[in-house]
This record gives sequence, structure tokens and C-alpha cells, in this order.
Amino acid sequence: MPARIGIAGLAGRMGRLLAEEVAAAGAALAGGTRRSAAPPAGDPGLPLLPDARALFEASEVVIDFTHAAAAAGHAALAAETGTPLVLGTSGLDAAQEAAVAEAARRVPIVYAANFAPGVVLLFSLAERMAAALPADQYDAEIVEMHHRQKVDAPSGTAVALGRAVAAGRGTTLEEAGRESGRDGHTGPRGTGTIGFAALRGGQVVGEHTLLFAAASEQIALTHRSFDRRVYATGAVRAALWLLGRPPGLYDMKHVLGLD
Amino acid sequence: MPARIGIAGLAGRMGRLLAEEVAAAGAALAGGTRRSAAPPAGDPGLPLLPDARALFEASEVVIDFTHAAAAAGHAALAAETGTPLVLGTSGLDAAQEAAVAEAARRVPIVYAANFAPGVVLLFSLAERMAAALPADQYDAEIVEMHHRQKVDAPSGTAVALGRAVAAGRGTTLEEAGRESGRDGHTGPRGTGTIGFAALRGGQVVGEHTLLFAAASEQIALTHRSFDRRVYATGAVRAALWLLGRPPGLYDMKHVLGLD
Amino acid sequence: MPARIGIAGLAGRMGRLLAEEVAAAGAALAGGTRRSAAPPAGDPGLPLLPDARALFEASEVVIDFTHAAAAAGHAALAAETGTPLVLGTSGLDAAQEAAVAEAARRVPIVYAANFAPGVVLLFSLAERMAAALPADQYDAEIVEMHHRQKVDAPSGTAVALGRAVAAGRGTTLEEAGRESGRDGHTGPRGTGTIGFAALRGGQVVGEHTLLFAAASEQIALTHRSFDRRVYATGAVRAALWLLGRPPGLYDMKHVLGLD
Amino acid sequence: MPARIGIAGLAGRMGRLLAEEVAAAGAALAGGTRRSAAPPAGDPGLPLLPDARALFEASEVVIDFTHAAAAAGHAALAAETGTPLVLGTSGLDAAQEAAVAEAARRVPIVYAANFAPGVVLLFSLAERMAAALPADQYDAEIVEMHHRQKVDAPSGTAVALGRAVAAGRGTTLEEAGRESGRDGHTGPRGTGTIGFAALRGGQVVGEHTLLFAAASEQIALTHRSFDRRVYATGAVRAALWLLGRPPGLYDMKHVLGLD
Repeated sequence: MPARIGIAGLAGRMGRLLAEEVAAAGAALAGGTRRSAAPPAGDPGLPLLPDARALFEASEVVIDFTHAAAAAGHAALAAETGTPLVLGTSGLDAAQEAAVAEAARRVPIVYAANFAPGVVLLFSLAERMAAALPADQYDAEIVEMHHRQKVDAPSGTAVALGRAVAAGRGTTLEEAGRESGRDGHTGPRGTGTIGFAALRGGQVVGEHTLLFAAASEQIALTHRSFDRRVYATGAVRAALWLLGRPPGLYDMKHVLGLD
Repeated sequence: MPARIGIAGLAGRMGRLLAEEVAAAGAALAGGTRRSAAPPAGDPGLPLLPDARALFEASEVVIDFTHAAAAAGHAALAAETGTPLVLGTSGLDAAQEAAVAEAARRVPIVYAANFAPGVVLLFSLAERMAAALPADQYDAEIVEMHHRQKVDAPSGTAVALGRAVAAGRGTTLEEAGRESGRDGHTGPRGTGTIGFAALRGGQVVGEHTLLFAAASEQIALTHRSFDRRVYATGAVRAALWLLGRPPGLYDMKHVLGLD
Repeated sequence: MPARIGIAGLAGRMGRLLAEEVAAAGAALAGGTRRSAAPPAGDPGLPLLPDARALFEASEVVIDFTHAAAAAGHAALAAETGTPLVLGTSGLDAAQEAAVAEAARRVPIVYAANFAPGVVLLFSLAERMAAALPADQYDAEIVEMHHRQKVDAPSGTAVALGRAVAAGRGTTLEEAGRESGRDGHTGPRGTGTIGFAALRGGQVVGEHTLLFAAASEQIALTHRSFDRRVYATGAVRAALWLLGRPPGLYDMKHVLGLD
Repeated sequence: MPARIGIAGLAGRMGRLLAEEVAAAGAALAGGTRRSAAPPAGDPGLPLLPDARALFEASEVVIDFTHAAAAAGHAALAAETGTPLVLGTSGLDAAQEAAVAEAARRVPIVYAANFAPGVVLLFSLAERMAAALPADQYDAEIVEMHHRQKVDAPSGTAVALGRAVAAGRGTTLEEAGRESGRDGHTGPRGTGTIGFAALRGGQVVGEHTLLFAAASEQIALTHRSFDRRVYATGAVRAALWLLGRPPGLYDMKHVLGLD
């Protein structure tokens, strides 16, 4: 019997990717909800359910990538119906996060900022590398590249990577110091600081490299995203991992067995 | 009081690098031995001691990168004098390895095949990555480059990296299967196999990349050695780590805190 | 007045990409033909013309990526109607190639194997690099990566790149010798030979690197294709370049100004 | 009969590298001069000549990497004695450059800022790539990495690379605009601008990458210097190339056949 997975926001772009990945994983689509209350038009094939309660009742596990405002309600329904939840929305406020944590006492929930297995691994390995390589011998540099429309630098993932390096060294990014966007007279590189450089061009979805450079050796870790589909693949993997799991608040590190 | 480190084979190329790294680490050179029993000529500056016993008696910790035949005797002297030992020789036979293990019951010994922190990290991370990324979605490929004189392929480090990937996937390299040196009609890539490719050129000391390639993302780990000095740096780090450590047989993973 | 570009095989996958790129370039779609003589169904938006003659009469320049069997007839129509032609089909036999050359005496034709500007540039630069760097000091290595379904190695583009290197050195790939798929006891690298290595994994469209490695420096050229659309972009660029050009047989090097 | 090459500044670090490369190329060392007038001490093996005139008289070609102040005098001696000259000093003022140009009317002179064949090639290829790839489709980004002591960014070579890109596009770096050291709110990438990013770490001698990123493809050129010896190798190559050459002022592009 394939697992029956429900999808909140099934009619949206992410919802459709999730449905494709449910099928690719050999699971069954239990149904979905859509944002608007309006009757589904033009997509007769979508198995839409009347509301969120129906979704949780029809599913063995639910995936929600919709919006922060829906998180608390969905978490409560998960707890009430005993249906595990994969929660991928961002921007939750403290009250919403508390509601999710409360629900997780009764049902297992994966709540994560990034579902790409490679990115989760990147953070975990970055911390490990930083812990093993003395900061006074190995200079840490982070380079990221994104499409030409991106308006800020460095990327959020690059900064998070810097925080992982700092944590591995037993400090914080603020304490360690960042050297970002070197230009002009910079003086010699600081020992223990973390360097950031940003490239922009083409339609690059996201590319991050973390380099540790010593005098006699270098070790580098590079991640490239080609397609947002990777988030859907990771979310379905999390959903299947949740089946039969005890209540608790998990993140992707647990799903990947990195803890 | 700086730690006093003794070096077996002080007059050789590795011995001299070790002495430089002892100084660079702020430790003191307790003295050394040299291969030949002949009186030291031409190097009045080398603090040579009459024999191995004198070396162990004069040192707080001894580093030995000489040859397999010396290992058992040095390990016994380490145990007898209570002097920790860093052992970097390769090619020990079973009896020699047993003698080292026996000594390690009375004194702490680091015995390792590779002292480059980056390489040790490479193996450790490779296994972790392989464990987190499903073999049916992430194809593992290993590329290595070495100088033009190298006569075989793939390199020993590349094969060891492949073994680490297989171990992370709960299998062996033999079971998983290797695709090495693709040329001609190869057929489609096998699922779960591990690919190897070898580049040769210039005077490259050693460069290894492990790539996991999925449809939507890739994650790669690259290590480059520039200089054999990195082994000396790692050995001195191991020596300092041994001071005050309980008896036992350790390897570089322990020194780097990767266990 | 935007240039009016006609597309043979408009209803196919490449035809549709070409139509999108015509629009993106600010040119006008003069119309197209489709493989089957059957009336166009289901795509009322496609401006289909009754036959190839009508296509050449309605267009200022025609793009043809259909099949080898159509090349001679299209070239003759181009000459007869005085309409420049971009010909991207492969597999032409000697008689078909002769017919294209004959037509090119009366009308300008771009006939090329690869329309990706980056790939054309790759070959041109490879030859230039090889000519400037002595083969006894700079070892040439070519690495390519493709998706896991690819059944042979090295790729056709990699071999063509090897030929460009050999030509730059005033020899042929056969004379220079190839070292492809190193595995096992290989002996030291030959001087002047060209190395090939093939990686397979994920859904990589195509990635090629040409590396020249000397003792003190390395120089490398890397090309990555993300999307087959690049061929359509290049073909439209060739079409616009042809307007007002004298009769002759051109290839993409001329379009890019690389000659 | 091997060519007899003379070396100004033979006792310095560069002079010794040059002497080694003269031998490696199978040429003969005609002799050298040294900075100080003091009698050569401690290096009885160095074939030192009494003064610059003796050097030019004893040599078939002279290499000078000493200092700008010597350039005019050496160029005059080259012209007077009919001895070709390889001039690698930098920082010449206008009068010194005029003296070199004047001498080059009577004797062939190679005068260049960088003798590494790979770097010369880098500039030449960069211009060619930029000319072939439309600036509105291909974003140009330059990344450089140097050792941790370097106090400014981007490197001089990176800026020169940017100038080559601009020249290939028929403009200047100032006109095109540079985006260097992106950090914070940058806004979307400008079309046609040239991006710069600087990494610092370890003891990297110099690494430069020029990337052209379009939506469907990327093409990148990377140069790595491992050793300053590459300048000596290039200078000896230039010296041998000069033999029998007509008078004129040449640079490394001519030596490499890149013009």
C-alpha cells in the first residue's frame, strides 16, 4: 500500500512540483487544498478537497509550503487528527512557532528552512570542517553565484554557511568578523575572519563554495542548485521519513541522519 | 615550557621538514636520530642523539616517519620509557602492527596512513555525504589529478575515497561496482556504482574531487595538496595532541576530533 | 521594420524554440512549415505555410533544423528565391553537401554543426591555446561530464576539442596520440599526447574542460550547457547576421567574427 | 652551438632562476652582472662579468629583470653592440620608454609586463571571447585569489583582464562600469558591466577566472600560477625567439604567435 500524502496549496507552482515528486517516489496523492475558496476551474484533474480538515483526515502525512499564516492552524489540525506534517513555510513569528512546537508534542513534524538535501549537508559539513581545521592555519572563504536579478549580497545561504563555520570554530560570525566584498585597499587578510564574495550573472539558480585555504593544502565544498524541484524532492523524502516516527519537532538534519 | 619533541630520522628530508614544523608550532626540538650509525658530518647544527633509546629518554613525545622495520622497536621503547609516539611509517606487517598495538596499551600512540588534515577530513566527510544522499538519486564520481610521472590510475587516495563512499552507503566498493576509465561504448551509467577518472599533467602534487550529482543539485568536495610539508604539520599537531592523553591507539580522526 | 524569419519544421520542439528566440530578438516570424502535410490541428496559433516554396517566398531568411533529406531541396529554393539560409541539420551525405555548396554560390548560407556560441568559441580558443603553449611543457587534458544515460565516452565534442588542440600544434589527434580512460598500470604520461576523461551523472546537459598543465602554471577553459535553447539563440543570431551578406558558405566562426 | 644568453642581475633571486631556465632550455650562460660593484663573494660558481658593456659583448642575447633605472642604458648598449634584449623591468617612465623604443629601431627587443605564457594568453583570449559574446546576453565576471598578505583588491592582473574584456567589446572598463566587491543592497546586475570578486587565503601565488554567464551556457577561462619560475621560463623563450629577428619592439604576444 503506497503512503497517502496530502498537499496544502496543491494548485500552486510548488504544489504541482510536490504532486509530481509524490508520484515519482511511488507514493499516492491523498488530495490537496488550494488557496482560493473559488471552485477549481480548468484543472479538473486536481483532486481538491473542500478544506484543510478534510485534507488532514484524508492523508497519512501532509506537506505544507503555503504561507506563514496557515502554519499554526495546520499544526493544530495535525495534532488533532494525528497526521504528521512537513512544514516548509518561512517567516513564522514567535506565536506561530510556538503553536508548531506545541503540536509537535503530539505528532511528529519536520519544520525546516531548506529542504534541499545538498544544502542541509553543506551546513552540517561546513561546521565539521571548521571544527577540524585550525582557524589560524586555514582561511575560510565563501563564494556564491546567483542570477543577474538578485539585488543583495552575500546570499542568505552564504551568510548561514558563514555562521556554520563560526559555530564549528566555537564562535559567532560577528565575533569572527566578516570580510565581504573586498575592494580597494583592504590590508592583509585577518586571521580567523570569514571572507565572502558574490558573483552575479545569467540565470544561475544558486551556487555556493566554501573554501579552507592553508599554505600546503586546500579543501573546498561546492553546492549547485539547478532546479527548485529539489525542494519538493526533499519534502517528499521528509514526509515518508515521518511515517511511524514518534512525536517531536524535527528538521532536515534528522531526515538525512546527520545528527 | 614548550613541549620537547624528538624526531627519528632527523637528517632525512621528512626529518628536516618535521624540525621546521616543530619550530613553527612553538615547540622545542629535543633531538633526533639518523639512519646511519656514522658520525654526523656536514650538519653540525643537527642535535643528533646516539641512539633511539636516548631519543625516547630525551623527548616528551617522539615522531617517527622512518621505515617499517623500525616501528616495533620504537613502539617498545615508547612503552618502556612512557613516551607517546606519532608513527607515520607505512607497510607494517601483521607482527609489526601487533607490536604497535601492544605498546599502545601502555602509552598513547597515533598511528596513521595520512597526516594531512584535509585528506583525513575528506574521507570522513565522504562517508557522511554518502550516508545522507540516496545512491539511486545521487551519482558519485571521483576525479583525481597528479603529475605526469605517475604510472597508475586511479590514485590510492581516490580508491580509498571510493571505499569511504561505499561504506557510507552501507556496502563495499566491490559490491557497489566501480566505473573507472570510461572509454568507448560504456552503456548507461550504473545506479549506485562509483565512477573514477584520472588526469595527468604538470607537477601536480595531488588533487581529488568527489562529486554527487543528482538531477536538481550537485555537491562536490575538492582537496588539493600543494606541498608535502602538510604531512609534517599534521604530525606535529598529532604530537602535541598526545601530551597528557591516556594510553591507546589513535589515528588522525581522533586528533582532528572527527570521531 | 523587423527582419522576417521563416522556420522549417515550426511545429517541432526545435521549431518552437526558434520561434521564441525570433521573438526575443525583436524579429518577426514570417511563417513556418511542418513535417506532415496534414492540416495543422490543435495549434491554431502557428502561422503555417502550405509548402517550402511558400516559406522561402515569405521570408527574408530561413532557418532549417529539420533533417538531412530536406537540405538539398531547401538550399535550391534558397538560391532560386534569393533567400539566405541557416542550415543546422547534420548527417548530410556528399551529394547533399555538394548541393548546399552549389547554392551558396548564389546566396549566403550558414551551415554549421553546432550553433552554441560558447562551443564554437571553445574550439577556436582551444586551437589558439595549443598553438601558443609548447606541447613538451604543457600537458593537454580534456574532461567532460554528461547525464547518466549517455552510452559512450568521450563525447563527440570532447573529441572535436582534442582535434582542435592537435591542429593548433600542427598535428592530428591520431599522430599526437590519445590517452583516454586511464585505469590500471598506465605508465608515465606521454609527452604531447592528449588526455580524455569522462564523468557521468545526474542530468548534466554537457560540460567540457580543456586544461593545459605545466610545472609552474595551468590554464583551463570550461564550457557548460544548461539548455538546448542555446542552439536556437545562436541560429537566430546567424539568421540576422546573414541579411545583406554576399553569397558564400559560412559557419558559426564567421558569425562570431572569429576568423 | 647552443645560444649564449647573458643575464643582468645574475646574483639575485630572479637571476638565478633565469640561469636555471637557460640550462633547462639547452642554451649556454654567457655570463652575468650583479647589482653591487663589490667583488662577488661566496658564489665562486657565478660567471660574473665586470660591467654591462662586457655582458652585452659576451652574449648573443641579454635578459634584464633588474630595475627601471637600468633600462635605458641597457637598451642603448643593446643597440650599440647589436645584441637583442629581453626587458622585463616595470615602472619605466616616459623618457626610459622612449629610449627603449629608440634602441628597438636598431635591434630587436622584447619588452613586456608579464612573461608567463598563460597570463599573456589569458589577456588575448579574454579579448577574443568578449568580442564574440554579446554583452547583453553574457555577463562577464572576474574572480581572483591570492595569498593572505595581499593588501589590495582586485589584483592588477584582474583589472587588466577587465580592460581586455572591455576592449573586446569595443569600449573601456570605465565606460562599461565595474561592479567590484558586491556587499549589501546592490540592486540587479548592470548589463554590460564587468564584475570583480577577490578571495584571499593561504599562500596562493595567483589564480584568475574570467566567466561569461548567459542563461543557457557559461564559458570560463582559469589561470593558476604555482611558481614565479614561470616568468623565467617565458623570458628564456623570448630570448631564443629573438635570435635572427629583425629590429623592432615586440611583446610576449609576438613571442607566442598570438598576433
